[in-house]
Amino acid sequence: MLTKLPDVMLEPMVRAALLEDLGRAGDITTSAIVPAGLRATMVLAARKPGTVAGLDLARLAFRLIDPAAVLEIHRPDGTSVAAGEAIATVHGAAAGLLTAERVALNYLCHLSGIATATAAVVAALDGLPTQVVCTRKTIPGLRAVQKYAVRAGGGANHRFGLDDAVLIKDNHIALAGGVAPAVERARASVGHLVKIELEVDTLDQLDEALRLGVDAVLLDNMSVDTLRRAVALVGGRAVTEASGGITRASARAIAETGVDMMSLGWLTHSSTALDIGLDSTG
Amino acid sequence: MLTKLPDVMLEPMVRAALLEDLGRAGDITTSAIVPAGLRATMVLAARKPGTVAGLDLARLAFRLIDPAAVLEIHRPDGTSVAAGEAIATVHGAAAGLLTAERVALNYLCHLSGIATATAAVVAALDGLPTQVVCTRKTIPGLRAVQKYAVRAGGGANHRFGLDDAVLIKDNHIALAGGVAPAVERARASVGHLVKIELEVDTLDQLDEALRLGVDAVLLDNMSVDTLRRAVALVGGRAVTEASGGITRASARAIAETGVDMMSLGWLTHSSTALDIGLDSTG
Amino acid sequence: MLTKLPDVMLEPMVRAALLEDLGRAGDITTSAIVPAGLRATMVLAARKPGTVAGLDLARLAFRLIDPAAVLEIHRPDGTSVAAGEAIATVHGAAAGLLTAERVALNYLCHLSGIATATAAVVAALDGLPTQVVCTRKTIPGLRAVQKYAVRAGGGANHRFGLDDAVLIKDNHIALAGGVAPAVERARASVGHLVKIELEVDTLDQLDEALRLGVDAVLLDNMSVDTLRRAVALVGGRAVTEASGGITRASARAIAETGVDMMSLGWLTHSSTALDIGLDSTG
Amino acid sequence: MLTKLPDVMLEPMVRAALLEDLGRAGDITTSAIVPAGLRATMVLAARKPGTVAGLDLARLAFRLIDPAAVLEIHRPDGTSVAAGEAIATVHGAAAGLLTAERVALNYLCHLSGIATATAAVVAALDGLPTQVVCTRKTIPGLRAVQKYAVRAGGGANHRFGLDDAVLIKDNHIALAGGVAPAVERARASVGHLVKIELEVDTLDQLDEALRLGVDAVLLDNMSVDTLRRAVALVGGRAVTEASGGITRASARAIAETGVDMMSLGWLTHSSTALDIGLDSTG
Amino acid sequence: MLTKLPDVMLEPMVRAALLEDLGRAGDITTSAIVPAGLRATMVLAARKPGTVAGLDLARLAFRLIDPAAVLEIHRPDGTSVAAGEAIATVHGAAAGLLTAERVALNYLCHLSGIATATAAVVAALDGLPTQVVCTRKTIPGLRAVQKYAVRAGGGANHRFGLDDAVLIKDNHIALAGGVAPAVERARASVGHLVKIELEVDTLDQLDEALRLGVDAVLLDNMSVDTLRRAVALVGGRAVTEASGGITRASARAIAETGVDMMSLGWLTHSSTALDIGLDSTG
Amino acid sequence: MLTKLPDVMLEPMVRAALLEDLGRAGDITTSAIVPAGLRATMVLAARKPGTVAGLDLARLAFRLIDPAAVLEIHRPDGTSVAAGEAIATVHGAAAGLLTAERVALNYLCHLSGIATATAAVVAALDGLPTQVVCTRKTIPGLRAVQKYAVRAGGGANHRFGLDDAVLIKDNHIALAGGVAPAVERARASVGHLVKIELEVDTLDQLDEALRLGVDAVLLDNMSVDTLRRAVALVGGRAVTEASGGITRASARAIAETGVDMMSLGWLTHSSTALDIGLDSTG
Repeated sequence: MLTKLPDVMLEPMVRAALLEDLGRAGDITTSAIVPAGLRATMVLAARKPGTVAGLDLARLAFRLIDPAAVLEIHRPDGTSVAAGEAIATVHGAAAGLLTAERVALNYLCHLSGIATATAAVVAALDGLPTQVVCTRKTIPGLRAVQKYAVRAGGGANHRFGLDDAVLIKDNHIALAGGVAPAVERARASVGHLVKIELEVDTLDQLDEALRLGVDAVLLDNMSVDTLRRAVALVGGRAVTEASGGITRASARAIAETGVDMMSLGWLTHSSTALDIGLDSTG
Repeated sequence: MLTKLPDVMLEPMVRAALLEDLGRAGDITTSAIVPAGLRATMVLAARKPGTVAGLDLARLAFRLIDPAAVLEIHRPDGTSVAAGEAIATVHGAAAGLLTAERVALNYLCHLSGIATATAAVVAALDGLPTQVVCTRKTIPGLRAVQKYAVRAGGGANHRFGLDDAVLIKDNHIALAGGVAPAVERARASVGHLVKIELEVDTLDQLDEALRLGVDAVLLDNMSVDTLRRAVALVGGRAVTEASGGITRASARAIAETGVDMMSLGWLTHSSTALDIGLDSTG
Repeated sequence: MLTKLPDVMLEPMVRAALLEDLGRAGDITTSAIVPAGLRATMVLAARKPGTVAGLDLARLAFRLIDPAAVLEIHRPDGTSVAAGEAIATVHGAAAGLLTAERVALNYLCHLSGIATATAAVVAALDGLPTQVVCTRKTIPGLRAVQKYAVRAGGGANHRFGLDDAVLIKDNHIALAGGVAPAVERARASVGHLVKIELEVDTLDQLDEALRLGVDAVLLDNMSVDTLRRAVALVGGRAVTEASGGITRASARAIAETGVDMMSLGWLTHSSTALDIGLDSTG
Repeated sequence: MLTKLPDVMLEPMVRAALLEDLGRAGDITTSAIVPAGLRATMVLAARKPGTVAGLDLARLAFRLIDPAAVLEIHRPDGTSVAAGEAIATVHGAAAGLLTAERVALNYLCHLSGIATATAAVVAALDGLPTQVVCTRKTIPGLRAVQKYAVRAGGGANHRFGLDDAVLIKDNHIALAGGVAPAVERARASVGHLVKIELEVDTLDQLDEALRLGVDAVLLDNMSVDTLRRAVALVGGRAVTEASGGITRASARAIAETGVDMMSLGWLTHSSTALDIGLDSTG
Repeated sequence: MLTKLPDVMLEPMVRAALLEDLGRAGDITTSAIVPAGLRATMVLAARKPGTVAGLDLARLAFRLIDPAAVLEIHRPDGTSVAAGEAIATVHGAAAGLLTAERVALNYLCHLSGIATATAAVVAALDGLPTQVVCTRKTIPGLRAVQKYAVRAGGGANHRFGLDDAVLIKDNHIALAGGVAPAVERARASVGHLVKIELEVDTLDQLDEALRLGVDAVLLDNMSVDTLRRAVALVGGRAVTEASGGITRASARAIAETGVDMMSLGWLTHSSTALDIGLDSTG
Repeated sequence: MLTKLPDVMLEPMVRAALLEDLGRAGDITTSAIVPAGLRATMVLAARKPGTVAGLDLARLAFRLIDPAAVLEIHRPDGTSVAAGEAIATVHGAAAGLLTAERVALNYLCHLSGIATATAAVVAALDGLPTQVVCTRKTIPGLRAVQKYAVRAGGGANHRFGLDDAVLIKDNHIALAGGVAPAVERARASVGHLVKIELEVDTLDQLDEALRLGVDAVLLDNMSVDTLRRAVALVGGRAVTEASGGITRASARAIAETGVDMMSLGWLTHSSTALDIGLDSTG
């Protein structure tokens, strides 16, 4: 089940996005041209096939400009949509819909783009248990909704921030003077409910990590062959995560190594927006 | 000369991005592992060639965590960088650099990606006067810095929001009951310093637009051939802007029609991040 | 048509104004004295003749304290009102109306004062095409609504900020080392949709400005006679703006020189508030 | 001694005012034209005589744009200044001073205008003990600094908000069903350190107020003659405040009735800004 | 009558508290487990006897997550509740109630704890006129609502901040060079409506304070016997406040000295939360 | 090692706390009385023995009022302090120290109170491996710093919010229709790095929980005897947490059952503040 984010989390973002677009004088084009009393019905339609994410943000954009606007959803977040298919219909003041349009679309296209990219990788792994997860390489200010979009695309989430799991990387190890002191200090510092993951580059490091008893290992930039041997070496003693330069094309081979998950930074930092438009009806 | 944004505009964004990453417990990995007094020097280095943008945001990320951190810049915003080349060197508390790293890189990679994409299109137009401009299809909350990144890549900016120019589109015309009433209402409503641009789909509409005396025309989704005829028809009476589905590959042919500018939404909504890393030295 | 500002822009201001007045203990007088269930109908009435502006802010003040309050408008923003005339009637909880009263009136009196002053200058120019515009000499935090009030009084708006048009002044020219480099640098830096205005003090400077092809000229502190010669010299090649020490008394003579617009800083920084009160009915 | 407000109170206002002016693209004129390394010294000089207020806000405006800017003060807040006299000298980056100029002046001119108006009324009362006080008729968002400006002009402050003293007005009395229940409910509700003031329109009401033992009486719109009799009737049993339509011209006669204070709403809602400019030196 | 705080003051706090709890991923437990359409009715019930405070904040917590939630109040703020007694019933989406539960209870338990502690001291003074007041020793960010809780418990409020009354303490006197200059400077600086209170440690200091004519005296850490003599010495010339180490056990003896009020910092900084739970019905 | 929170997280809280105390007129007592140029050295001294927490917040309070103030720390966060012992010495402007005093102390006393209470429970478990953890029963707005104070006292942290671990309680189970569907839905919904904890009231429920393979079990309100049997039943297959009504007196007996941790809500919602004062030196 897709975990939705409550409006109380989303509304401040949408307010800020509307204010960013309205500036100091508001929508001077629409205000000058569109008669105030006019009502309209418009359709949010996909121009390309994809997976939907972000309808709550689009709804809030319309509602914050016109509290009486209604968004009727045909293809909810997490479902696929064909090119030309209607995702939702919005009814409201014509002027209000035009004023809110860009903000609604900016969220919807961006997040649907992430969901679409995620869904494509997930589809490539069809039948395999490996999870597709995102990273902390997100656009500043959008982490919560970008990670939501990954879930909408069938992916899962890695850490949400620096505070919800320990992830020990190269630099930490170097500064701590070794893997063992790094892991020991981390374990002494955090509570029992926080997991500890360690980045390893070689099978030797992996062996040391397993002896230290970490919860998860990030297998960084390993070849498919090395990944396979790493999974065998772990033997279920830790969660295994493949990371580094994984593309949609290379994903299946990596998953077939048996890793529990693969993390892809580009899902959130470089996905192509899904092309969605707001069309007049009749 | 690249118009820089003052820190007073950037700092609130970077603060929010840091808080988004720090969550409620801060950087539990680094705090546990890295000794407090340790100092370090690290290098921001490009993994791929590109154009730099966002160093002010990176600097603020390091400085808001460690006020004594110093960012020494080798390749300033707006300059190109080769794969493997150092963009900047940062000196500061080792723990602070690691805590700020992700936010610094998230801004720098995203904005350098936009600058790089812009620079590629600008390069494709070498020797032609046509400007490359971005649109309002931006990531919510990042409009000011994304548009700055387009400038860093050699592009120019279209409207920053709904309030700084009139742009009359299909939906406005339909709701106003025609092009003439739309343009007349807009002209009656805005001051002498605000320009009026009209979206046209055909040469007939363009003809009407020119008779109404608009400042600029957005030539939407026209073929190269139609664009050429449109430019001839305009004859310098208005600024001409080509828009719709323009790629790096198609850009030069479009510019050769003589349009004054071309607008590309994907520069800001779908650019690929430039791969930049923070590397330990020595 | 008066371009209204959407509630999403106004509500944060009104919330802040209410919190400024409520402090940490709220309305201790009304809470102690006025029974909670009591309802009331009160009238916003002008004590002096003027032009109304700010009813949306007044409505929000009442509604943010009492969501069920209703503001019935008799004289909307932009219309004139006689001394003693009712502008609007408000129905709601008696205690809520008294608590919100001061904030509602502070906005309404201030903005109606600006609209009234603007309307007086506009009336003095009756039959002439010259526009009355405001400047950036606004009360910090109120620029958007003060400029709205100028529009409600029949005026137009100059720049909303440092970012929506280029205005080259004395100091810029001095620091650039001349008018020509200043204009050239500006033109090279901004997009085609941004207008460039130049401040000129003499006809010689004006001549140079016209040769450089600026969009508008600010004719600073010129006598009526010089203004007339400046307008002739411009001959329609640029928008002309008279500025500096213009009063209601001197406005008509200045407009008769044929300038396109006159800018008056005092409309926003020194207008007298319109005296409006909240009266009990029956 | 003039009670200064700490920077922690003022800085958020100045930040917001700068962002309001910088918009989304910053100071496009100055950035394009003024070389980055250039330093300048400029003078804040009065064009008209008056009393200074707001230098802390001006200093913050310059410092938030250029942290290295220094404001050297010649005529501090609360002192008078002659026409043409220098109030302060500012040294800093030339571009930074121009970018911050308008915000610095908007605060300084507005607040000095209030201080100047206050000082004029205070001067008219020379030799008399009556205090000049402001009201809650302030510009939303500026109450703290406007009331500070009144103090800089030699005046004193009435209530800062709805929460720091009880002020029972006509509407409260009507809704409470009389003066006595209103006063009794207020006394039962607030702590011993909160004063209770009652608005009275007639000597009969004043008599009742005194019997109820209120701390202060607001003598609303009374003639000079009635005020004199009211002061005699009070006989020191309560603080007396004259209010309603008091001008600089009528102030002395009112003070001579012996009232303890007079409140003037127009000091904060309708003062004329003091004309102050930022001039290049040498 | 208990002075309620309007929602416009409370809502920002509750929003912030919800966001603090929701973090970046929201309520992952409830979202995963509880079906979206399910509705529920739950009861806020006291586990221990006490006095209720904070229902407006609890209502807002539920309503900000589920706008259709309804809180039916059985024991309003300021009333006592027995162990096991229902304070209120809430109807709404089951998932929403569980998501908002902790924030609603955190406010309700904390503020009811303060009200309960206050009511216990007030009860100990039954029949005596001495007021129980709180101090500025509050939890940062909660002053307005903690002081409200004290009122709900039958207490009254001392200063709300540094700005609403003068309270001259030891350190001020030392730095001013004596009691007399301190009081004189304060009187010269503040308006007629601001009261001046002086902290005194001995009867000699009290004598000097009375000669200087302060409005109130804070009798710090005096024995019951000294307090009695102090009250006699004051003879009604100033409000008397006992302060310093007063417990519920010692309160009555102190009140019997005749002091007007006693201030207890621990009411707000160290009260025990009232145990209240949210129980399923049926 | 105690994980410190960076200033970028703490400063917004301290700013808000100072503004709450300064209100609209600032520190009217100190401003009127204490000469501006005066410098002072004062000592933060414990009046009772305890464990220190919150010095970073105290430092920020002084520094935000007086940027030149210096806090010299004698007993850092996490160390114990004797009655009368100096925790820190602060040097700065005398007026600034007095203005910031209350906010600095409000944080320091509150957080040191939590650290002291935690340390007392931790001491009671001396020699046993059981961890002392806090809950989400925190004061709204202070969760991050309260949880920090628990760590300063030697405790550990449970969930920071609704989003960083799954905790399935009675109500979730009831609404899901049983333990198994609840656990299964949770597992299907969250990523591999999120732990799942289940609240159990009986050994039968515990048995089912273990079969479902949850990461941790919350043993709610069990007797010492039942806890012992629960720990045996678990046999290391899950983290065990005792919860419900645990006091300092009962803590050791509970720890001796072998549970991995015990959670105590009262550490954060009902601790007594540690009495700390700011004393003049010399």
